[in-house]
Amino acid sequence: MTETKRRNLETVPLDEVQGRHDSEALNLQGYDTVSLSNLSLPAFGQQSEAVREVDFDFLEAEQEGGNVPDEHFSEEPSVYRRFTGLLVRWIFRVPTPLRYFTHLTMFLVILGVLSASVIFLVDLSVHVLEVFRIWISSDNFGGYFVGFISYFLTALLLCLLSTFACQALGKEAEGSGIPQMKSILSGFYDRSKNSLKLRVLGAKSLGLICAIGGGLPVGWEGPNVHIACIISHQLSRLPFFRFIRRDKSLRLQMIGAACAVGLASSFGAPVGGVLYSLETTASFYIVRTFWKATAATVSGALIYKLLYDTPLVEAFQKTSFDIGVVDPTELVLFALLGILMGCAGSLFVYCVHQVYRIRMKKLPLTNRYILVGIVASVAAILQYPVELFRLDPRMAINELFSPETLRVLSPLQVFLLLVVKFPLVVVSVGLPIPAGVFVPSFLLGSCFGRLYGELLKLIFGDIIVPGGYAVVAAASFTTGVTRALSCAVIIFEVTGQLRHLVPTLVAVLFAFVTGNIFNRSLYDTLIIMKNIPYMPYMRKDRTPDMKVSQVMIRECISIQEYSNPGTLHEILQAYPEFSCFPVVNKDGYLLGAVKRRTLSTLVATQSPQLLMNSKLDMDYGDNEEFPASSGNMADDEEEEEDDSVHSSDTHPTASLNRNDSYVKTKDINESSSYSSPSLVEVPKDVSPLLVTEDTQLGRVHFMFVMLMPKCAYVVNGGKLTGVLTRLDIVECGQSTFTTN
Amino acid sequence: MTETKRRNLETVPLDEVQGRHDSEALNLQGYDTVSLSNLSLPAFGQQSEAVREVDFDFLEAEQEGGNVPDEHFSEEPSVYRRFTGLLVRWIFRVPTPLRYFTHLTMFLVILGVLSASVIFLVDLSVHVLEVFRIWISSDNFGGYFVGFISYFLTALLLCLLSTFACQALGKEAEGSGIPQMKSILSGFYDRSKNSLKLRVLGAKSLGLICAIGGGLPVGWEGPNVHIACIISHQLSRLPFFRFIRRDKSLRLQMIGAACAVGLASSFGAPVGGVLYSLETTASFYIVRTFWKATAATVSGALIYKLLYDTPLVEAFQKTSFDIGVVDPTELVLFALLGILMGCAGSLFVYCVHQVYRIRMKKLPLTNRYILVGIVASVAAILQYPVELFRLDPRMAINELFSPETLRVLSPLQVFLLLVVKFPLVVVSVGLPIPAGVFVPSFLLGSCFGRLYGELLKLIFGDIIVPGGYAVVAAASFTTGVTRALSCAVIIFEVTGQLRHLVPTLVAVLFAFVTGNIFNRSLYDTLIIMKNIPYMPYMRKDRTPDMKVSQVMIRECISIQEYSNPGTLHEILQAYPEFSCFPVVNKDGYLLGAVKRRTLSTLVATQSPQLLMNSKLDMDYGDNEEFPASSGNMADDEEEEEDDSVHSSDTHPTASLNRNDSYVKTKDINESSSYSSPSLVEVPKDVSPLLVTEDTQLGRVHFMFVMLMPKCAYVVNGGKLTGVLTRLDIVECGQSTFTTN
Repeated sequence: MTETKRRNLETVPLDEVQGRHDSEALNLQGYDTVSLSNLSLPAFGQQSEAVREVDFDFLEAEQEGGNVPDEHFSEEPSVYRRFTGLLVRWIFRVPTPLRYFTHLTMFLVILGVLSASVIFLVDLSVHVLEVFRIWISSDNFGGYFVGFISYFLTALLLCLLSTFACQALGKEAEGSGIPQMKSILSGFYDRSKNSLKLRVLGAKSLGLICAIGGGLPVGWEGPNVHIACIISHQLSRLPFFRFIRRDKSLRLQMIGAACAVGLASSFGAPVGGVLYSLETTASFYIVRTFWKATAATVSGALIYKLLYDTPLVEAFQKTSFDIGVVDPTELVLFALLGILMGCAGSLFVYCVHQVYRIRMKKLPLTNRYILVGIVASVAAILQYPVELFRLDPRMAINELFSPETLRVLSPLQVFLLLVVKFPLVVVSVGLPIPAGVFVPSFLLGSCFGRLYGELLKLIFGDIIVPGGYAVVAAASFTTGVTRALSCAVIIFEVTGQLRHLVPTLVAVLFAFVTGNIFNRSLYDTLIIMKNIPYMPYMRKDRTPDMKVSQVMIRECISIQEYSNPGTLHEILQAYPEFSCFPVVNKDGYLLGAVKRRTLSTLVATQSPQLLMNSKLDMDYGDNEEFPASSGNMADDEEEEEDDSVHSSDTHPTASLNRNDSYVKTKDINESSSYSSPSLVEVPKDVSPLLVTEDTQLGRVHFMFVMLMPKCAYVVNGGKLTGVLTRLDIVECGQSTFTTN
Repeated sequence: MTETKRRNLETVPLDEVQGRHDSEALNLQGYDTVSLSNLSLPAFGQQSEAVREVDFDFLEAEQEGGNVPDEHFSEEPSVYRRFTGLLVRWIFRVPTPLRYFTHLTMFLVILGVLSASVIFLVDLSVHVLEVFRIWISSDNFGGYFVGFISYFLTALLLCLLSTFACQALGKEAEGSGIPQMKSILSGFYDRSKNSLKLRVLGAKSLGLICAIGGGLPVGWEGPNVHIACIISHQLSRLPFFRFIRRDKSLRLQMIGAACAVGLASSFGAPVGGVLYSLETTASFYIVRTFWKATAATVSGALIYKLLYDTPLVEAFQKTSFDIGVVDPTELVLFALLGILMGCAGSLFVYCVHQVYRIRMKKLPLTNRYILVGIVASVAAILQYPVELFRLDPRMAINELFSPETLRVLSPLQVFLLLVVKFPLVVVSVGLPIPAGVFVPSFLLGSCFGRLYGELLKLIFGDIIVPGGYAVVAAASFTTGVTRALSCAVIIFEVTGQLRHLVPTLVAVLFAFVTGNIFNRSLYDTLIIMKNIPYMPYMRKDRTPDMKVSQVMIRECISIQEYSNPGTLHEILQAYPEFSCFPVVNKDGYLLGAVKRRTLSTLVATQSPQLLMNSKLDMDYGDNEEFPASSGNMADDEEEEEDDSVHSSDTHPTASLNRNDSYVKTKDINESSSYSSPSLVEVPKDVSPLLVTEDTQLGRVHFMFVMLMPKCAYVVNGGKLTGVLTRLDIVECGQSTFTTN
């Protein structure tokens, strides 16, 4: 069928349908060139494989069982890999896709189990601290005042310890952690990957234990998400799971699954966790993540069930409302509650932003310890008088959710709780400590809802179940803050009931919509506040007609098709930041692109002296630091290279590297003509993303969002005229993005 | 900061960094050209707007409130639009984003309410038919035999009517409908949009009523999804909602939301429906769809609640199991059940495929009426003896799910139900009638699970609740068939219980994994069986090293930068299938692309005689039909054009069209020089997707999946060497895709 079409087209008699013969000639030429370069450089025999595997700039979607290069399983010469290889081969005796699948499943199960365990340990430590503080502030040691003093001092000590942990181990541990994960999921892995270091895990857990144990009203689900993501990242560094690390798409899917696990293990809500990780994703969700996230969260949920069935830690109680048919009138009340919660949620976000702004403006140099100390003192003073205020918020939430009348707290105390906690949470969220916002939101929402419900009960009588309103308000206030509809599902799973499904969903939707009218979600606000790189949807109405030519960097370093090795070497030395270079012919027409590594090998094979003298040549060219937007092109690549160097010491699986060295030793004798003016042909082993100058910026933005390349080359009539990086686009959009 | 960077780069002393001045010169030239074309052709004053709005090949992601061109709201000269405009402006008095949002929300609410109502009406009609048939086959009219005869005859009549409806009104109504929606969501809107016609809605509803009413064991959720999608599509054709139709991304999001509504309204499961629509999406899910789908399903769920609370129709009963802590041993039993259900599900898929294959091979010419008649007769004969077999499957499912011991059915009868229904369902699913598979799967799964549970109860005693196993098995068998994990959530919402959350999720995951080991999901199988265009993940291991140059069509029609209007006209006449043409300079370097409409206007303004003589010229050039892969480039565009012509009669909002005619009448007097040899410059108003020849096919496939363009131009060193369409890629992958 395609054959017929081609013939049909071939018999077209129009003059205008030309450029065909030219193009075919060019194609043949171009094709020969490629094979020539293959022949002349045996090191690139596996070039295409390598391109697919490591140097592929785009995020590649993978097919189950199809994507993994077989060599991960077939060539494992080290003792460890040989053992695991034999294990897999003997025990499982399955074809490659299934082996790949087995590895993946093992990763997911380990991720779920490990994350849930770590999260439980953190929770347990918090509980131990709380019990300890209750004990020392009890009447055993003296009166009310002595109790208060010991409560106050421990609070101060723990909170200072919390911020010290962040300062000493990793400042990336400060805050919720979800903004950083959003940044990574939107494609800024290379810019935000510092958040995934092991020491950040330590800082986050220790800081979180101390902060909550010290009585600050912060939540643990954001930090838990962060913890799970770090665990996922660190797991993927293990040699057994390196295939995950190498596949950019799979890596992102695993971060998505880890987000789900983190949230699911905080609440025992597997479905809600998966949905939440969907909503955390910036713009598009790879559907294949879904089952992976589910598998991981279910593993986590099993551990959660096992651990939280023990009476060690406070857990959410299951509710048992007997709401029958919901009256349409009551639905209106729920909708109204949703609107109120949406307003309250956006007020909360506004306050957090304002507090942060005032702090940055008025107290820019204030020591972190002074800040945390003051807030911790105020929190201790305010929370000490009523016992339920200073205990685990889950106890208060359980009380507020209960279908019966309030037992411990009076409505006045609920109101007090609301009034005391709201400003405290607002201030605490911005402090330099690990601080989540989900649980405090649940608490604030349920206070509000309980009051609303009690009020309605006074008006309408016993038909109203105030606890039900507390549940709905908890979900919808959290939605108002985070703009995540999955809060509804999380609350269903927390309470174990689905009877109030429709009212909750209605209220949550209204809160979502109302909140979005006023401002953006807390996480997006935090991203702006902390200048985390992020690629959101662009507001096209604000940059309506901008073209690529207005944003691109016109001065683009390019390499001639036939170049002198010396010149190539100079370029490599001068631009250590770039991981790949565009290749043009002598008229400036773009032919393709070449990887840095390929170029180095080329230089090494052609004139190895250059490489030896490279230390002496280092001062050539302006080596001053490039701005970040150029630098980010190299970051990821470099780490990949570092890794492969490390791994080739221990596990020489990277056949490319071995070939390189082989070529080096062999060709040194042949072409040892330093400063030979002979031109070598530069191979083109990367197929770059091309855009034309007239392309609308919105369109290029879309391409960057979807394909996640690091940069795109701009061509005009075939000639290379510029380059465009992710950050150029973000910067361009940021002027409008930051205006609230 | 960018400024500094540019200066840094400007002072680079290397010779290799050249092509900069060239490129800038070229850029200026190119830019002037564009503005020149703007000046010479006032019709293209709004060119950029038009490009963004209609002719943008890519799927564009939209920003809430940012995307809608304001003219939808500012220029509404017709009475209807003026009225609605005033209404919106006066009543709401809100800024544009909010107005856009209001429209969108109205659309979603109407979609939810309308779909749920239609689905309820279909269900009600089925119920009426069932009651009628029970009445006429009861003992009132004679004995058992007379009852059977009337049951048999009505079954035959209704089933034949069902297939007649499909034949007469639209063959697209046959089958589940979900495969077509998957095709549309994977980007083949233009190839599958026939399924969204209004007459298909009629065929689908009528056919469904008759098929289920006629006693065939088919489900209604697939057809319901299809119905909701048709409603969404038809709603978007209303002038008030045209902005949805114009935005490709929004259109897809609405199809996604409609899928969610269709499923949610079948079961009253809003969350499950949203999740299901996520899993129906081929490869990536636009996160913005999430709240839209939720809003629509919640509106639908409100209606569902309202309508199904009436005792008109059979509904799923809420269960109330008292499963406490799930024993780890029991969890193993659930996991085993999941594995069994996965095997059974994939067996089901295999049987459906084999039955279809045998039918196609052995009985290719068999009349559809004979086929349906035979199956209907067999079904009637087999199902008549036991009353519960021939009633609404929901009654049987409620019985099987019940926590108490079985009342109506004995275990033997459950076994019989399984044995009778399994082959019947397998055969019915492939018949030329509307046929879903969810509800029969629920039924088969719950039969199996109940038997499994009863068996376990015999072994382990009263600790086992067989109804719980029926619930879990229903979800996991359905997952085994559809490979959708959301079945778990749907079953939670159907039964209203979350207590068996973890066991269900575990079983469903095991079923998913087990099923995927054997074959692909029923819907993917149906897609292959019925040759529906679909763009799934490509199995990279099977086309590992293919390059674009091996697949592309080398003979690409291109237009010279400076062309004779006569030649342009000839090209337009010769290739009515193409919606845009690449523009090259005289050396064959690609400069950009031009829309067909722009070209026609250019020809019209330059030499209007050509247009008048066009009817005479029609026989010029080979006008034979092109294969589909070229044709699909024009389809969508043409419909868009048709629409705008229609709308400009009634609501002349398309300012471009008006300008066109203005230019036409004005310029006829000026440039009436037919066959003038003067060359005109072709404007380049489309920025095409460019790929290089060496690009790996997997990468281009990924670009097609993510960006959803219709075609990509292949360049080599700047020269246009070929074109690549969606279907070329799919065809290339299909040779491997169809092998099971």
